Order: sequence, then C-alpha cells, then structure tokens
Amino acid sequence: MSILVVGSVAFDTLETPSGRRERCLGGAATHFSLAASYFTDVRVIAVVGEDFTPELESVLTNRGIDTRGIEHVAGKSFFWEGSYLNSLNEATTLNTELNVFQSFTPKIPAEYQDSDYLFLANIDPVLQADVRGKMPKAKLVGGDTMNYWINDHAENLAKVLKGLDVLLINDGEAKLLAKDANLVNAAAKILDAGPKSLVVKHGEFGATAFFSDRSFAGITKKVFLPFRAPALPLSEVVDPTGAGDSFAGGFFGYIASQPEFTPEVFKKAMFYGGVMGSFAVERFGTERLAQLDPKEIGERFALFRELSHLD
Amino acid sequence: MSILVVGSVAFDTLETPSGRRERCLGGAATHFSLAASYFTDVRVIAVVGEDFTPELESVLTNRGIDTRGIEHVAGKSFFWEGSYLNSLNEATTLNTELNVFQSFTPKIPAEYQDSDYLFLANIDPVLQADVRGKMPKAKLVGGDTMNYWINDHAENLAKVLKGLDVLLINDGEAKLLAKDANLVNAAAKILDAGPKSLVVKHGEFGATAFFSDRSFAGITKKVFLPFRAPALPLSEVVDPTGAGDSFAGGFFGYIASQPEFTPEVFKKAMFYGGVMGSFAVERFGTERLAQLDPKEIGERFALFRELSHLD
Repeated sequence: MSILVVGSVAFDTLETPSGRRERCLGGAATHFSLAASYFTDVRVIAVVGEDFTPELESVLTNRGIDTRGIEHVAGKSFFWEGSYLNSLNEATTLNTELNVFQSFTPKIPAEYQDSDYLFLANIDPVLQADVRGKMPKAKLVGGDTMNYWINDHAENLAKVLKGLDVLLINDGEAKLLAKDANLVNAAAKILDAGPKSLVVKHGEFGATAFFSDRSFAGITKKVFLPFRAPALPLSEVVDPTGAGDSFAGGFFGYIASQPEFTPEVFKKAMFYGGVMGSFAVERFGTERLAQLDPKEIGERFALFRELSHLD
Repeated sequence: MSILVVGSVAFDTLETPSGRRERCLGGAATHFSLAASYFTDVRVIAVVGEDFTPELESVLTNRGIDTRGIEHVAGKSFFWEGSYLNSLNEATTLNTELNVFQSFTPKIPAEYQDSDYLFLANIDPVLQADVRGKMPKAKLVGGDTMNYWINDHAENLAKVLKGLDVLLINDGEAKLLAKDANLVNAAAKILDAGPKSLVVKHGEFGATAFFSDRSFAGITKKVFLPFRAPALPLSEVVDPTGAGDSFAGGFFGYIASQPEFTPEVFKKAMFYGGVMGSFAVERFGTERLAQLDPKEIGERFALFRELSHLD
C-alpha cells in the first residue's frame, strides 16, 4: 500500500569527523522516501526551487518514488548547514535558509488521495495539521517534530499530536515535550496528549516503543510493555544526517508492505527502522540509501536479530 | 559451582531524587554477592571494621553467602557518600573514607581455594592482580574497574586486564580506557589489551558484549558479532548505587550455575545481569536484592525477553 510523506526536500552542507560535503541532496522527506521505497510505494509532497535539477529528482524517481507532489517554484530550495565535529549525536546548526519553504502550502495531487499511510515529517505543525486534515481516510498516520516546534509552537503541535497513530522522536525531544527527565514517565505523558504509540529513538542504543492503553489497530494490552529494538554498533558513523528519517522510512515502509497491522508487524518495523538508519549513516547524504541492494536489507535484519536475540 | 569475589564491603550514605539514606550496607562485593547468590554459591573476600555488626553480616549469610573471607579488623569500614541529585546516571562523590581498606591485603581461606569462578570487583588493581595470582586454577575470571584506576594506575591495571576472561565496565570507562570515543573501536582496543570478552554497560539502554577473536571457552567466530541485552525502562530509579555490581553478580552467577560455558549461556547471562541490575535500583542500598523471591527473577527474565524479542 502507498505511503504519502510531506516534508522537506533540501540541500545540506555537512561537516563530520569523516569529511565535508557541500550541498548534498537532503531533507526529511528525501531520507524517509528513499528508506521506505525498499518496502512499498512512496509519494512525496514538498517544495523545491530552481536549483533542484532533474538529476537530483532522478535520485528519487530511480527508486520508484512518485514525485508528482514535489512543487517547483521560483527561488532557492531549503538549505541547511550543520557540523558534527563536536558530537556525532547532535548537530550544530551553522546556517538555515528556509527559502521556498517559507511560503509553502502543501497541495495534495488527486493521484495521492488514496494513500493508506501518511507520514508528517518534521515541518511546521500548522502544515502537518493541514495535510492531516486533507487526508481523513489515512489508515495510519505517523509524525515527527523537533525542539524548535516543541518550544515555540506548542499549541499548534498539540493539535498534530491528537491525530497521530505513531509519533517518532528522539530521547531529548521526548523529555522536552513531556517536561519529564524519566523516559517512562515522559512517554506516559506524551501518550496522554494524543498519539496512540510513541517510538523514542536512542541513536546508537536503538529505539523504544511505548503504547497507549487505548485500542490501537489490533495491538492488545499484552504489548503495552514497551518494546526495544537494537541499533548496530558501528565503527564509523560517516554522517548522522537523516538517520532518524531513514528509521521512520524503514519503520513505516515495512508496516505499509504488510497485509495487516499487528503487534508482530509493529515490532519488526522497529527493527527495519534501525536497519535503514544503520545504512543511512554509513555514507554522506543519500549516497548509501539511494543504492542499496535489497538483499543487504534482509542480511542486516538477520544481523539485528542475532545481535539481540537469545535464540 | 562456586564464585569467589574480592571487593569492598562498605557503608554508603546516599542522596537521590527519591530520598536520603545514612550508612546503608553497600560496597561492590556486597551487591555482587547478593545478586549472584540467587544463582550459585558465593564466597567473599573483603575487610571490615568494628562498625560492621553481626546483623549486617547476616544480610549476606541469610542469602547463604560464605563470609569466612571477610576479615574483621580494628577501625572503621570503608565509607562512601554520594549524591545523584544532578544525574541518576552519574554519582557525585561527596566523601570517601578508605579506613580499613587502606592497608588491606586479601587472604584467601583454604576453603575458598577450589572456587571455579573469580570476580575481581572494583578495587586497587594491585590487589586484583594479587588475588588473580593466588587463584591460578579459576576457570573464568571477571573484573571491573573505574576512572580513578584507569587514569592514575594504568600500568597496574594493564596487568590485570591480561588475566581477564570478561571485563565489565560502563561506556565512559570503556572510552576512557581505550582513549577512543567510538564504542566499537574502543572495544577492539580493549580486547587487544587482554580480556577475552568485554561487557559494556549502558545504564538504561542495556549492555553490549564484544568478543576477542581468540579462542574463548567454546565461543566461536559466529558470535564475534557483538551481543546487546536490553534494560528495563523504569519509571523510578530509587538508587542507582550497585547497579553495575548487581549486573556483574547476575551475569557471573548465572554462568556459574550452568554446566557448560557456551555462547548461549553468555547471552542469557547478559539478560540476567540486566534483570538483577533492574531490581537493585528499585530500592535503596541492598533492600531489594537482599529479599527477592526467586520467582520474581524468572518473571523479569521473561519480561526482558518479551521487551526485546520479535517472537
């Protein structure tokens, strides 16, 4: 089944201990789409400027991603410059230029209306809510956010949270959103605010899913115990940019590829999220995720299982 | 089979967000012994002062722990005062009084000589090496250390590392010991320095085991992939003191309780380590580990499995 993702398609200039890259293809929707494209059909809604060439668009279309929802307008694409020289766990933002994203109003092509899955990548919660409202029939809705929206746009974000089946954020964001330094208590508060489930990403330590006690797509009380998926210990993280979006893409892509949404599918999706995140960071930008051999995904999934399972 | 542990038996004054306790029974050998006592016979070597009452010793003997190796001398027992008000992940030391530990020379009772397993808890590496030398027939030797010995007693510690089958330390200690901020590379360097395996504890994120490529008690190349065990997400950590020693006690206790040392046993031991650590932090000092119902251990092991396994 098809996933619709709305988010940024952008240029990133990146500085990491492994090197520097100027104006890589980046953006949350880009990383998400590429990761999800190995599992299911993906449709993108975003806006780009005149600097977004057909060659760049072909990175997406070569993976079968439907880019009819990428709006081309006059001006320059969203641009971000970040450094990981201080820490691979947190980027230092050196420059952000919203450019064409500043006046973006998402439009949903008629061909996208039947998308069963919807992912609201990290953008202004007003836009997230707008897209959510235009897709009332989506079977499962996921979303991401970041410190900036949590701190300065709390009211708008609160409306988005109420419409989510799965919120995917990292440790720091979860604790900030809940104003609670204990992860379990933070998760309970966030679930009270709306999302039916919460996936908290721990970087090199994997991710933990928490479930609300409301009815959720066949997930019964039994799995209200959190579920923890591992990450692969890596000897070199070349570029952490997009790891979280790649996790979300693998997670949602796998769910959308399955005939039913069950607790087992949710758990496996957590593993596939980690798998896609682990590939993403092995090279700069989209280099690795744009050219994966699907066989590698299965092999790495087996590795994740072996890494974490007793038998 | 029997485990011999050498380490501190002490008094701790503790301050955590959950409250304050004066002069609890503490010490690495205490936490280790209590945790291991649910799995196998445990023998302790330590030194205490006149303040160590028969009532306190009975906390250990009630669990069947052999305390004949606890030397009673004139003076006061080792004392530590720490606060976790700033962070539950790292104690701020407010006071340390070595007292009777200052002039401690471990003596191994004749009845302890046949111990199959040896654990060198976090004490001066000179003492660790001394005990290791006196137990040449031990089948499996584990050890712990801390920043102080890594920084200021590196040469002595290097000798201990060469004699270890398993080194159990936390993330920060591993990175400090290897002078490498990447966990995988740090693990490789540490394994090069001697230990046949390394268990790195990540606190709330569990623990990862790394294996050297030398022959190690039936562990084949196949499991040279690291192994990652989860921790239980807890809504309240009352007192983190002794969590690492309790992990080590559960880990070693389980191994010693098994007829053979296999990769499967090593992996399960990682889970039992996490299980015992999760109990330890639920109350102050030894309150929880001194009075566990063995049934609870089995139930929590099942929880750890459910938390982390796909099926």
